[in-house]
Amino acid sequence: MSFTLHGLGVSKGIAIGKVHIIRHDQIEVSEYTLSKHNLEEEVSRFEKALAIARQQLLQIRDKAPKDTAVDIAAIIEAHLLMLDDSLLTRAPIELIHQHQCNAEWALKLQCESLVQIFDKMEDPYLSARKSDVEQVVMRIQRILRGYAETALEPENMANMIILADDLSPADTVLMQHHGILAFITEYGGMTSHTAILARSLGIPAIVGLRRARAYIQSDDILVVDGFQGMILAEPDERSLRYYRMRQREEKRQRAALNKLKNSPTMTRDGTPITLHVNIEFPEDVTAVKRVGGEGIGLYRTEFLFMNRQQPPDEEEHFEAYSRVVRALKGGSVTIRTLDLGADKPIDSRFYDGSVGANPALGLRAIRLCLKNQKLFKPQLRAILRASALGQVRMMIPMVCSFQELVQVHNLMEEIRDELRNKSIKFNSQMPFGVMVEVPAMAICSDLIASYVDFLSIGTNDLIQYTLAIDRGNDAVNYLYDPLHPAVLRLIKMSIDAAVKVDKPISMCGEMASDSRYVRLLLGLGLRYFSVNPEAFLEVKQIINNSDMKGLSQRTNEILQTSSPTEITERLEAINA
Amino acid sequence: MSFTLHGLGVSKGIAIGKVHIIRHDQIEVSEYTLSKHNLEEEVSRFEKALAIARQQLLQIRDKAPKDTAVDIAAIIEAHLLMLDDSLLTRAPIELIHQHQCNAEWALKLQCESLVQIFDKMEDPYLSARKSDVEQVVMRIQRILRGYAETALEPENMANMIILADDLSPADTVLMQHHGILAFITEYGGMTSHTAILARSLGIPAIVGLRRARAYIQSDDILVVDGFQGMILAEPDERSLRYYRMRQREEKRQRAALNKLKNSPTMTRDGTPITLHVNIEFPEDVTAVKRVGGEGIGLYRTEFLFMNRQQPPDEEEHFEAYSRVVRALKGGSVTIRTLDLGADKPIDSRFYDGSVGANPALGLRAIRLCLKNQKLFKPQLRAILRASALGQVRMMIPMVCSFQELVQVHNLMEEIRDELRNKSIKFNSQMPFGVMVEVPAMAICSDLIASYVDFLSIGTNDLIQYTLAIDRGNDAVNYLYDPLHPAVLRLIKMSIDAAVKVDKPISMCGEMASDSRYVRLLLGLGLRYFSVNPEAFLEVKQIINNSDMKGLSQRTNEILQTSSPTEITERLEAINA
Repeated sequence: MSFTLHGLGVSKGIAIGKVHIIRHDQIEVSEYTLSKHNLEEEVSRFEKALAIARQQLLQIRDKAPKDTAVDIAAIIEAHLLMLDDSLLTRAPIELIHQHQCNAEWALKLQCESLVQIFDKMEDPYLSARKSDVEQVVMRIQRILRGYAETALEPENMANMIILADDLSPADTVLMQHHGILAFITEYGGMTSHTAILARSLGIPAIVGLRRARAYIQSDDILVVDGFQGMILAEPDERSLRYYRMRQREEKRQRAALNKLKNSPTMTRDGTPITLHVNIEFPEDVTAVKRVGGEGIGLYRTEFLFMNRQQPPDEEEHFEAYSRVVRALKGGSVTIRTLDLGADKPIDSRFYDGSVGANPALGLRAIRLCLKNQKLFKPQLRAILRASALGQVRMMIPMVCSFQELVQVHNLMEEIRDELRNKSIKFNSQMPFGVMVEVPAMAICSDLIASYVDFLSIGTNDLIQYTLAIDRGNDAVNYLYDPLHPAVLRLIKMSIDAAVKVDKPISMCGEMASDSRYVRLLLGLGLRYFSVNPEAFLEVKQIINNSDMKGLSQRTNEILQTSSPTEITERLEAINA
Repeated sequence: MSFTLHGLGVSKGIAIGKVHIIRHDQIEVSEYTLSKHNLEEEVSRFEKALAIARQQLLQIRDKAPKDTAVDIAAIIEAHLLMLDDSLLTRAPIELIHQHQCNAEWALKLQCESLVQIFDKMEDPYLSARKSDVEQVVMRIQRILRGYAETALEPENMANMIILADDLSPADTVLMQHHGILAFITEYGGMTSHTAILARSLGIPAIVGLRRARAYIQSDDILVVDGFQGMILAEPDERSLRYYRMRQREEKRQRAALNKLKNSPTMTRDGTPITLHVNIEFPEDVTAVKRVGGEGIGLYRTEFLFMNRQQPPDEEEHFEAYSRVVRALKGGSVTIRTLDLGADKPIDSRFYDGSVGANPALGLRAIRLCLKNQKLFKPQLRAILRASALGQVRMMIPMVCSFQELVQVHNLMEEIRDELRNKSIKFNSQMPFGVMVEVPAMAICSDLIASYVDFLSIGTNDLIQYTLAIDRGNDAVNYLYDPLHPAVLRLIKMSIDAAVKVDKPISMCGEMASDSRYVRLLLGLGLRYFSVNPEAFLEVKQIINNSDMKGLSQRTNEILQTSSPTEITERLEAINA
């Protein structure tokens, strides 16, 4: 009998195939009391296990393919660092002495007390750290038990759907190039290692399928629907036919989209549109090339601060930027300065004040950078240096006041002087722009446009503040609405203001990547879209199939409409 | 030698006089082990103390003057309720048995564990509850010790400045009518009992003067400067002369302002302005009358939900509203529906979901009311019933979408039907308005104006969202700026939209009460101010001394200015 299970789809696509189950089973640990003269021996057994664990991780790191996603590689580094942390090295040894017990038991006690600390933190970022601790501890426990390094034999996973409790970063490194069809896991969320790996491989993935291994056997036939976050086990013939058809359709669509790769982006009646890509990691350049992208409209730089003990130095910044600038071979690269804070929590090493009762309205992005210039200056220097290598633009997030712009200008001037004094090359004409994501900036876009070289609209925050809705809050996110006439008016206001003084304006927010809104945005006057790699070709297709004629009048009518139903109807008519 | 101490000025004014120190000293409690057959006796000693505490509080409550501020009276009620709570009645008795100890020690242990729980809560509202627990426990401890009820002899405090660690609600009730010159306390904040009492008495107060009692002796001469939050101890002759002059000036100014009480509010060149008052409690009607106010532009209703176990029923709502409507004798009363949430925390009894990571962008005000209609409907019914008694207007806070308005309209229609069926009177033409405080509403004020009978601009939230600044957050509140051109533009946009369709628009936010902004607002087209009672006469004076001529052009120039310095200069020129 076929049945379905539902989880969170974290990577799109449909896969049909046999399942391969990975069991990272918990190791049962018991306590043994040791005699006093055996304690030193036990300690050295534990220290040997630490050394082996270190070797294993070093091997995984060194064997990792060059194009491993940076943040997965960084997590391997973080695991290595944990193996040097006294919380995992000295503390268990103290416990061995204190309880006169075996190393496994001491390690288990220490792990439990660490996990308890993490459990008190509600932050999703920190709770991901908790699973890192558990994974490192599990690795040591396996070594103490004399188990083989890992149960993984990736060669046997070709053309299989992988089902696991969760994947560790080490697993994902090993699994990268073995023709796996899809991932499904019992735990994890949108930013778990599994999700990141699946999206970078372009295969479907569903996470959070609690207890899936209780229902599914090895070699069962599964349909994985990454769009819906659903798996269908033991499908009947009719379902299989349906999903095979869906797969073919998807394939056909992908082929049609792929044909667009080398064609220009232009409406049917000849209006040229700039279509660039948003990236999060230097490695994403591969995805940009794959879809035929020629420029990067938003290069996020938060990855440089993830999973690490120290803020990156100027060289690391420069290395990350120059790698992308060189890969783009003359294409434009818009680097956004650090946007930490709010939903991307500020590590206490970077700011030790309180985050306040409303982090989204608190110290974040440029506010944090201006407060902590030790964080900011290396980035500014590196961006300026990278500007000598290609077409680099610099963009500031979350600007809300003119003072902030003046402060950044002064800082830049200071750094340019420093670079000149040291005869370090940079482009003194590097374009300088701001994100329009605080309502005040959209409302004053006419004033701001004369201060900067370009503008870029960030829709997620703009909508959030304009409607006073935290879209991460389930109690109110039903009110979050990109089609609210206030939002559309602010977008139009910003575009009109920039056009009037002949400054480029783009949109790099999620709204630009959403196929439903492409024509609406064209109608509002947008001529520069920057979108996620996955959305790139679809957006291009819609643009190339659109006629500008009448579009702006029809969208202006939406701005005068207050009924949500009527707005939806008018939008459907435009998209038809 | 004279010296100064600095705290937080919570009530304006200057006082000069001798100090009277109140010591609520901590009682040292020791543990005694009792024999088993003495335990019952100890329990009955404790129960007797509870009974006496209850009697004392009942007496204070019943002797309290009729015009005691509602929330102070409510806290006395809360203390009475605590004396019936098993956490303070049953738990200490269990501890007496468990530890075979004296009642004082058991009570101390229980108090400590309650305080620990409160200490984990960062919320300022809940931490105020902690001091309520401590005050009730202290009262019981004093009784167990056989101390006299209180050290207060209010009759001796006439013409004195009162210095205390902090004032309990019971203290403030006793101190109301004894000609006290000023309050200074070591603890407390803007909303402490001391602050509330001082403002309602119109005498200066400074709180948070840590360790003041270590520096100041009884009968010392002090100058209390409530404007600066500063006290000057043992002032020399020159300082005394200066502050006496300041006092006279203040008095003269107050006299000049008082003369304005019965004159109309009108610019020098004859533009009539509506000037109403904001109130928080029904008792504030006295203050409205004192300044000659004829209408209430904002009647907040959160007080009905403060310090209580159960939400108020329809009768309580009605009683509170009708009292004010009757007192106004035909003057307009604008009742704002419940604005709980964000900085006015939602009690878990009213909503048991999570408040989310950003409460200011979460479930609050109308969002909460539409989700919890059991809370909302009694209020709507009571407002409608009160509309039969006078000129009542109803106003909805935090509206951000048109759907919300439709939902409120439908709810109102339902309630009107109910009232009609029961032949209960109400004004079917009662004006219905919204606050403009979410940026979306200002941006769409032209669309919203056709849906409602009036608009009212709430500047605190409008500024907060427009600039994405939590002004309660010390790390970023330097960016909070009522003069940001985006804020001024949204205000103008809203006023213009309302004027165009001939709908009244007022401003009830703090900006309207700030004398620096009155002319600017006149220039932006505002003709209806609603201000705090303390600001009322000063605002009237400025209006009556203003000329409309040229004002609107000069303010429009500010809207085109981006430099904060230039904006300030232009504003100063307008105010000159």
